[in-house]
Amino acid sequence: MGKQYRDQEYLVKIGKRIVEIRDLRKITQEKLAELTEIDTRQIGRIERAETNVSISSLKLIADHLKISVSDLLDFSKSIEK
Amino acid sequence: MGKQYRDQEYLVKIGKRIVEIRDLRKITQEKLAELTEIDTRQIGRIERAETNVSISSLKLIADHLKISVSDLLDFSKSIEK
Repeated sequence: MGKQYRDQEYLVKIGKRIVEIRDLRKITQEKLAELTEIDTRQIGRIERAETNVSISSLKLIADHLKISVSDLLDFSKSIEK
Repeated sequence: MGKQYRDQEYLVKIGKRIVEIRDLRKITQEKLAELTEIDTRQIGRIERAETNVSISSLKLIADHLKISVSDLLDFSKSIEK
């Protein structure tokens, strides 16, 4: 793995944003885990900013939340239902 | 590490985008490595899509390329000099 360069504040924003969009889409953590084939516990860790998510995992999550990664990371952008 | 969920095509786009912006900013790989404190070889691996970059590393790279991660990942968006 090598050295980690974590930006905790940024990870927290991303986690909260995922929860916000997931709730809006009425998708549970378990359902998102099933759709993305990412472990439910890992989805939880990403949402709680306990892990430095890879861009591929974030892409997979964004795809299944029907949003681009770019829009997911544009925290000021409102989400279309 | 656990299971990897790599989206190779997406990683390639990100790598090319980083090179494009880095060139526009006239920053070498070595200089970007120095600025971000990410190993030069790792910068190379990210640019060649040989690694699944973490969101924190991407944030660090974007910050030093004076672009938001959201804009870096919006491949259609033109870059301001």
